[in-house]
Amino acid sequence: MGEFELIRRFFATASCARESEGVALGIGDDCALLQLADGEQLAVSTDTLVAGVHFPETCDPFLLGQRALAVAASDLAAMGADPLAFTLALTLPDADEAWLAAFARGLERMARGCRLTLAGGDTTRGPLCLTLTVFGRLPAGQALTRSGARPGDLLCVGGSLGDGGGALALVLGQRQAPPRVADYLLERYWAPQPQFALGRWLRGRATAALDISDGLLADVGHLARASGVAVQVERERLPLAPALLELHGREAAFGHALSGGDDYRLAFALPETYRDELQRLWPEAAVIGRVSAGSGVRLLDAAGDELPLPATGYQHF
Amino acid sequence: MGEFELIRRFFATASCARESEGVALGIGDDCALLQLADGEQLAVSTDTLVAGVHFPETCDPFLLGQRALAVAASDLAAMGADPLAFTLALTLPDADEAWLAAFARGLERMARGCRLTLAGGDTTRGPLCLTLTVFGRLPAGQALTRSGARPGDLLCVGGSLGDGGGALALVLGQRQAPPRVADYLLERYWAPQPQFALGRWLRGRATAALDISDGLLADVGHLARASGVAVQVERERLPLAPALLELHGREAAFGHALSGGDDYRLAFALPETYRDELQRLWPEAAVIGRVSAGSGVRLLDAAGDELPLPATGYQHF
Repeated sequence: MGEFELIRRFFATASCARESEGVALGIGDDCALLQLADGEQLAVSTDTLVAGVHFPETCDPFLLGQRALAVAASDLAAMGADPLAFTLALTLPDADEAWLAAFARGLERMARGCRLTLAGGDTTRGPLCLTLTVFGRLPAGQALTRSGARPGDLLCVGGSLGDGGGALALVLGQRQAPPRVADYLLERYWAPQPQFALGRWLRGRATAALDISDGLLADVGHLARASGVAVQVERERLPLAPALLELHGREAAFGHALSGGDDYRLAFALPETYRDELQRLWPEAAVIGRVSAGSGVRLLDAAGDELPLPATGYQHF
Repeated sequence: MGEFELIRRFFATASCARESEGVALGIGDDCALLQLADGEQLAVSTDTLVAGVHFPETCDPFLLGQRALAVAASDLAAMGADPLAFTLALTLPDADEAWLAAFARGLERMARGCRLTLAGGDTTRGPLCLTLTVFGRLPAGQALTRSGARPGDLLCVGGSLGDGGGALALVLGQRQAPPRVADYLLERYWAPQPQFALGRWLRGRATAALDISDGLLADVGHLARASGVAVQVERERLPLAPALLELHGREAAFGHALSGGDDYRLAFALPETYRDELQRLWPEAAVIGRVSAGSGVRLLDAAGDELPLPATGYQHF
C-alpha cells in the first residue's frame, strides 16, 4: 500500500473529508483552500502527540484518533472560534491496516461531533507521532484572548475539573473502578468535548479565556500573566464530578482539579454583570474565584485563608 | 529550560515571528489569528520531515531549518498563493541550545526570504521530527489546481531539473566536487527557493500546476490523472544546470531530472498563447512537452520516438 493509496482508503474517502461550507478544496492538491466570510478572521492552532510521551505505543487507535482531535479543537473553543477544518500529519512506523481503520474511525467520530472537516495532511514513515492543525473562524476583533482580564471580573470554569488527571490511573490500568465511575472518567479522558457553544456565548462577554490543558493553576497563571492581573481561586468552589470523588476521595480530587491537566474545560474571566446569565444558561459552569489587581495566583480555603500552591504543570524539557 | 522559555528564546522573539499584515495575533495565545482581505481564500499545506527518514539525525540544524520551510512553502507557490504565515510543530529528543539556535537561524533566513510570519506551533519531547503548516492567500477562485490542464496546452517547468536528486551524493558525502559545482547543487538542495513570483504570474494563465517534489514524471503523472489528460515529456528539452551535467554526465543528469525529486520547481500546463510571454519574462523556465487527450505520461527522445519510463517516485509504505 503506497502513501497515496493509504490516504485515499483511510482519510480522503472518510465522510469528515467531504468539502463543506468553508472548505473550497480538500485533500488531493498541493494545498487545501479555506473560505471565510467577509469580516471574519481565521483561528489556527497546532498540537503534537508523540507515542511514549503523550500516549502509550499500544494505545487503542480509535480512542487516540478521538482524543487527538478533541485536544487540538479545544484551543479553537477557547478562542471563541466556530469550528471549520483540520489537517493531520501522521507519522507511522508501518501501514497497519487494522490500526489505520480504527484510528480513522475515532478521528471521524470526533470530527463529525465537532463539525470539523479534514482538509489535508501528510503521511510519513517514522516513530508514531501526530500533529493536528485546527482551523476556526470568528468575527474579526471578537477573539477571546488570554490578555483582557480586569480586576473585579469573576474567574470561572466551564465544567467539572480534575477528570482528566483523575482518569489517568484507570487509563494506565493502575486502578479499577465500578462501571458508572470508570465509564464517566474514561469518556472524559478519551473524548473530552471541546466547549464550542460556551466559547461562542463568551464572545463579547468574557474579557479573557483559555482551555485547561496544563492544569487549572498553571493555566489561570498564564491568563493572569498575559492580562497583568492577579487571580484568586477558592478551592471549595471547584466543581468536582461524583465519579472523581468516589474514586479518589476529596483531597486527591482537589489535587487533580488544581494540577492534573487534560481537562479541556474553558477557564475565563467574566464581568460580574453576566453572573446570572452564566448560571442560567450554563449550569455546569462555575464561578471559582476573582480577578484582582496585582500578579500571580492565590489559592484560598473556605474561610478565605491562603493555602500553599501544589506543584503545577508538566514540563517537557 | 521549560517549554515556554524555549519557545520564547528561540522562536517567539525571532524577527520572523513579528505580527504582520495578515497575522493579527501571533505566538502565545490558544490560537493565532490570520486576517484575509475580503474576497480572498486561504491556502493551507502541511509537511512532515522525520529524522532518519527525510534527513540524517546529524543533519546541520541551520540547513535543516532553511530547507524544512522551503519545502513546505513550495506548495503555496504551486497553488499561486501569496505567502502569509506558518506554524512549526517541533519534536526534539532534548533541548540542545546550540542546535536550537542554529535551527532557528535557518528557519528565520528562509522565512524572511519568503515573507512568511511564524504565527504559532507546538514544542514537544520525542524523536526528532518537524511538521510545518504553511498559509498563503489568493483571490477566491484563482488557485492553480492540478485538475484543469487541457489538450493542446504546453507542459512547462519553472527552471532546471535534477538538481535535488543530483545533489544527494554530495549531501551524503559519497561524492566530492569542485566548489562551483558543489556550491550550486548544495544551495539548490538545502535552500530551494519556492517560486512565488512565477506562481503569481501563472494565476489566470496556467490551467494546472504543482511543484516537483516526487520527481518530474511522477508529478506530471499526478497532474495528468487529476486533469483527465495525457502528457508528453520531450527529454531533450529538460533544462539541466551546468553543475549537474559536470558532476553526473548527460545520461545520469536525465535520470535525476526525470525521477530524482526534491526539485521544488513548478510544473504547469499553459495555453500556447502565453508561450512568448513565458519565454520573455521567465527565461529560466522551459517548455518541455505537451498535454493531449488520453491518459498517462509518455517520454519522447529528440526524434519523437517513445522511450521507456524509468522507475518513479519514492514510496513511504
